[in-house]
Amino acid sequence: MQIDHLGIAVESLEGARAVWEGGLGAALGPVEEVPQQGVRVAFLSVGAAHLELLEPTGPETPVGRFLARGGRGVHHVAFAVPSVDAKLQALADLGLRLIDRVGRTGARGRRVGFAHPSAFGGVLVEFVEAP
Amino acid sequence: MQIDHLGIAVESLEGARAVWEGGLGAALGPVEEVPQQGVRVAFLSVGAAHLELLEPTGPETPVGRFLARGGRGVHHVAFAVPSVDAKLQALADLGLRLIDRVGRTGARGRRVGFAHPSAFGGVLVEFVEAP
Repeated sequence: MQIDHLGIAVESLEGARAVWEGGLGAALGPVEEVPQQGVRVAFLSVGAAHLELLEPTGPETPVGRFLARGGRGVHHVAFAVPSVDAKLQALADLGLRLIDRVGRTGARGRRVGFAHPSAFGGVLVEFVEAP
Repeated sequence: MQIDHLGIAVESLEGARAVWEGGLGAALGPVEEVPQQGVRVAFLSVGAAHLELLEPTGPETPVGRFLARGGRGVHHVAFAVPSVDAKLQALADLGLRLIDRVGRTGARGRRVGFAHPSAFGGVLVEFVEAP
């Protein structure tokens, strides 16, 4: 299991660009909108993993609500898996609570699925399939 | 720049063990106490990076206060750097707020230093020197 990316909630991608590019010395990639998750995202490479900066497209989106209730920083942790569907099924078999029972298409056109934060001690965990 | 580890605040290492070992299929390493940070920690390998589970040794510790104010999940993100002191100095030169002006010894005997969360948009960022 590898970390694919960390999702980091930000008020504004433009504001966050200076912070992360300056602080880590890495360049932010192109901005992509993911309408079904209500975010505009941009990725920044850190070794084999990425930071995914997440700007909500409105207050009534998951990331908008996360920021509104005082959430700051890391919104989710994503692990790379060979098969999102198989991983979600394995977690369901363990009795863990899931947001997605089967994968769906996320940023970068990748198949993704989320466990419920209660499954991982309050951490929102995403699984991402290799392209 | 590579992600060295994610620090994850937990109420109890023993309770968290089942969650993370079961959910990710990886084994937690030995428990180490880091008195100067008020935590007991255990690491779990995820590819080249690690998850560092952090159990506070009391309520009046940084992680104890984080949990008490409703913080859940990812407490900090640690990046590997060749020199912690040089990285901290570079951030100070950019005018960024730091917790540590020079490195100190952290878990696993590694030299570490923390930026202030305000430097990275609310994310507590640690830098860790390779052993």
